[in-house]
Formats: sequence, C-alpha cells, structure tokens
Amino acid sequence: MPGLVIGVDLGATNIRAALGNIESGILRRVEEKTVQSESPDDVIQQFIRLIRMVSANDLDKVRAIGIGSIGPLDCWRGVILNPPNVPFKNVHIVETLRDMFRVPVYLLNDCTTAALGEWVFGAGRGLKNLAYITLSSGIGGGVVVDGIPLIGKDGNAAEIGHMVIDFEERLACNCGGRGHREAYCSGSGIPKLAKYLIESRPDYFCGTLVEDLVGRGELTPKSLFELARRGDKGALKIIEEVGRLNAIGFANVNTLYDPELITVGGSIALNNLELVLKPIIANIGGYTANRAPKIIITPLGGDVVLYGAIALASNPPQTLAQGVR
Amino acid sequence: MPGLVIGVDLGATNIRAALGNIESGILRRVEEKTVQSESPDDVIQQFIRLIRMVSANDLDKVRAIGIGSIGPLDCWRGVILNPPNVPFKNVHIVETLRDMFRVPVYLLNDCTTAALGEWVFGAGRGLKNLAYITLSSGIGGGVVVDGIPLIGKDGNAAEIGHMVIDFEERLACNCGGRGHREAYCSGSGIPKLAKYLIESRPDYFCGTLVEDLVGRGELTPKSLFELARRGDKGALKIIEEVGRLNAIGFANVNTLYDPELITVGGSIALNNLELVLKPIIANIGGYTANRAPKIIITPLGGDVVLYGAIALASNPPQTLAQGVR
Repeated sequence: MPGLVIGVDLGATNIRAALGNIESGILRRVEEKTVQSESPDDVIQQFIRLIRMVSANDLDKVRAIGIGSIGPLDCWRGVILNPPNVPFKNVHIVETLRDMFRVPVYLLNDCTTAALGEWVFGAGRGLKNLAYITLSSGIGGGVVVDGIPLIGKDGNAAEIGHMVIDFEERLACNCGGRGHREAYCSGSGIPKLAKYLIESRPDYFCGTLVEDLVGRGELTPKSLFELARRGDKGALKIIEEVGRLNAIGFANVNTLYDPELITVGGSIALNNLELVLKPIIANIGGYTANRAPKIIITPLGGDVVLYGAIALASNPPQTLAQGVR
Repeated sequence: MPGLVIGVDLGATNIRAALGNIESGILRRVEEKTVQSESPDDVIQQFIRLIRMVSANDLDKVRAIGIGSIGPLDCWRGVILNPPNVPFKNVHIVETLRDMFRVPVYLLNDCTTAALGEWVFGAGRGLKNLAYITLSSGIGGGVVVDGIPLIGKDGNAAEIGHMVIDFEERLACNCGGRGHREAYCSGSGIPKLAKYLIESRPDYFCGTLVEDLVGRGELTPKSLFELARRGDKGALKIIEEVGRLNAIGFANVNTLYDPELITVGGSIALNNLELVLKPIIANIGGYTANRAPKIIITPLGGDVVLYGAIALASNPPQTLAQGVR
C-alpha cells in the first residue's frame, strides 16, 4: 500500500482535513468551524487536533501534510500572514507541524491548491495547461502552465481577482486597489457594480425592485440572482453586465496563461450556473487573442481545495519542495 | 570545448543569426533585411543561407538551432503561421531545418525567447521569476515563473499586450479585439489614445501643437515624445496618461505572474527612457496587489531575442523538448 498523506483546507469559515493518497483521493475526512481566535496557537492546536482525528490509527503511515489556506501567505517561510475575515495572523504553521509530526509540510494558497486538485484528481487530469477560478465573495485563481503549478516570488502568481480591468478606477477593491476585477463581479463587488450602474447609467434605470434594494443599500448577490430568475428586468440587465465583465476576466486569464481548460468553483458560480457560466462561454472569444479554452464547473465541487491539499502533500511542486524562493 | 548552437531572431524588418553557446553567449553574428516574399521557400532559403554563413567552418560542431520569431506561431508543429507586416505565411521552418542540418530545432515567439535570453544571459540570471516586456509598435511579453519559461497550450502564455484594461472597449486593437492594452499604449496605440483623449476629454484641450497633429492624423509616438521633451503641455499630459496605463499593464503582469524583476525593451521604451519608465516605477504599487518587482531596461538591448535564441537552442524548455502540447 502506498504511503498516506494529510490534506487540510483552511477557510475563513470552515477547516477541513482529509486522509488520502494519489491513488485513492480522499479516504477519510473531518470538518469543523474555523476557530475564531486572535491566538496563532489556537489555530495550530485546531490543525493538530484535526490531523490526529482524521489520521486515527494510521498516523505512523502519514508521509506528508499539504495545506491549502486563505491568504495572504508566505509559502516559502510557511506562514499564514494576515487573512481578512479571521482574527488570527502570523501563524507559523509549517514549522510547527513539521516539528510535531516529523514529516514534510507544504503550504499554498487555496486557489493554487484547488488548481492542483483539479489537475491531479479532477477535470484537468492529463492536461498540461489549465486554470481554476473561484467566483465567491472574492475572486481567486490557480494556474498550471506546461505541467507546472505557478507559484511566483511570494506565492501569488495567479492573483487574478486583482487585475485592473477598468483603467478609470471607478470601484474600490477590498485590497485597497481600484479598478480590480474583484471590485466589479465578485460577491462583494456585484452590489457595488449594481449601485454604480443604476446611479450613473440612465439605461439601467427601469423602476424595478432591484433599484429599491440598491437605494436602501440592501442588494446582495443572492437577492440579485433571485430577482433575475423571477424575470426582473433591472436585475437581468445588471446580471448581463456582470456576465460581460466575467467574460473579460476569463479572457484575460486565457490571454495570459493560454490554458486548455478553465474550471470554475465558488458559491456565486455553483449557485447560479446558468446565469453566470453561459455569458462567460458566449463572450470570451470576443475578448481574448488566444484560442478559447473549454470552460466547465469543477467536478470536485466544494472539495476541490481538499483534493488539492492531498495532491500537494503527495507531489509538491518541485520549486516548493526545494524550499528556495 | 562545449558544443556550439545557432540562434536566429526573425523580425518583420530584420533577420539575425548568431553562433554561440551558454558559456560565451554570442561568438559571431550576421544580419539582413527580412525577405519580403510571399513564398515560404524564400524565407526558408534565407534561414539556411544565414545559418551557413554564421556557422562558417564550424557547421559540424553545431548541436542545435533556436529560433525566436514574430508570431503567431504553432511552436509545437514548428510553423510560422501568418504574422502581420510580412507577406509570407505557413512557413514550416522547424521540420525543414531539422531535415537539412540534422540537429534539433526549436521555435518560440520572440518575446518568450527574449525572456529566456534575459534569464540566461541578462539581468535575470539566478532568478526564478521574471518577465520581459517590449514596448514597441505592439506590446509583447515573455515570462519565467518558478524557473520555467511559460509556453501554454499554443505557445501564447504571455500575450500581455492583449489583456483587456478598458472594459468599456473604447479603442480597437490590431488583433481585432477591443479595450486591449496594446490599443492604448503601444506605438500603434498611442496616436489612437491621443485622439480619443483630445476629442472626448475637455481637460485634454489646451490648444497646443499636439492637437494640430492629431487633427491632421499625423501624430506619431516619435513626434509626441519630441513635443513632450520640448515642454508641450498637451503632449506632456497625454504622455502622463500613457505612463499611468503602462503602470496598470505592468501591475497586471506583476499580479498575474509575481515576478522579482521586469525588464523592458522595445523602441518606445529604449528611445524614451525617462518619459516611459519613470511613471511605471512610480505608479505600479498603486495598482498591484502583489509586492512590486524591480523594473529596469534590459541590459541586452536590441540583442535580447538573439541571446534568447542561443539559450533556447542550448537548454530548450522541457515541455518543448518533449514536443508534446
């Protein structure tokens, strides 16, 4: 029997751990709410507890640990720096777990980890060029080019949510930048885009419910998509613009990495398949200079990062395994 | 003595060939005007003639040939497809040269080849993450991430001139797309941007010479930069906007590849160092989510592609050497 590995998916809300290997994928899994503490120690203790729990009697067979985590990280020093939406920061997770369990430990951001999962266990098997994009409260991505998962000088080689697509810098991004794609068509950006369109573009006035919600500052992506599904003209028009901007974002990913396949995850996409994916597929060709890729929802669903963490532990990217920035 | 290789840089105007190797770089070089013929055979004959000429008595010591070429290409089939600005197309250069000289032959687009040159012989030596950007009549790029020169499914993994930075799609790109960066701040784009700004933005009216030139359709990048150097207010204002848009383009490259270093070549940059490079360095930090890279003019100047072709022949990227897309 081949060695076992542990994969951990650390999100702002949930933390999940799996025991598995390259041959079988996930063999056993546990999940908890992520500890909401300012103490790095509390986070580390949660990791240790989950790893022990999911390993059970097989701990001595575990050969490596892979972690896909919310960022920003320093993947080379193995530190979770200061993610938004959680109270902890500066968690030296790699060194601590390595000393504790005496196995190699690898840390990558969750979207790069997801791309690894797609590549090894999902729709990307056998391909040399693919990208994974998550459309959620933020927009993130991970990319494999020429059979190499891209990492970069600090581990941020695919921060695709933060590319500038509006050189007039109309909307502000959560990262502090302006004009970034995430500010327009992520879960947190869509309400800002709706407000901008309704307030500044006369052709977006049509006296419907969506305008009331925007006026009261109560529009959410969920309510917008619900209104669109019920045929609200104003909502449909905004969703159409979100679709066009998503197509531009996907086109830029295709132009800058030339993938065969883009798989899509994240709640905005998974909960609104038709309204989100269709306009991307219909419009990407008009915006990219390269041959358009195949675009599908990830078959790994919400487990794509966890699968990626198993893949990361089993076959870490060479550059990360060497530990040299 | 290590084996020798041949590097060829095929441009729309000039074709250059060099004999060299990894240790010594370029040992001997020849240059001609690129043949302006519709016949692929004429192009191939020019390659053969230059290779024989530059090899002289050392032809039997040549171990490989590397070609950095204007695109679009199919680097996997080894074909120069249909580059704009030259009359020839569908040149099956790799197979023909391989059969003729009985050595491996590798073909990559000129900007990816330039990135290889920078990495092996230039300012990128010892780095794992760098990008090369050319600001010329078009805008192109080549990227090395994690010690791998990116190629992609069709060899177009860094078509950075064709990323959309204006989601309102105001200006048309030479490739047929709209809103692409190349349409705003390349040599061919700058006059279009100037016209757009003067005609649609009242704050760009200032009754200076640059407006006369735009009005007569005679503004060139050269005349614009000359007017700016002479202190023409209108020209300086437009150059300022070009600088801001260049900073956005460089920021997106940093956000999407996370390089340590970006080196810059191309006539627009090389002829207007201060006016082009300064605003990029000053403004990139405001647009990118990642740690800003070092930005410098390439020390290899106009030879960067030729050096890259020597590097390509000496150490072809693994994926290209395997010949599997």
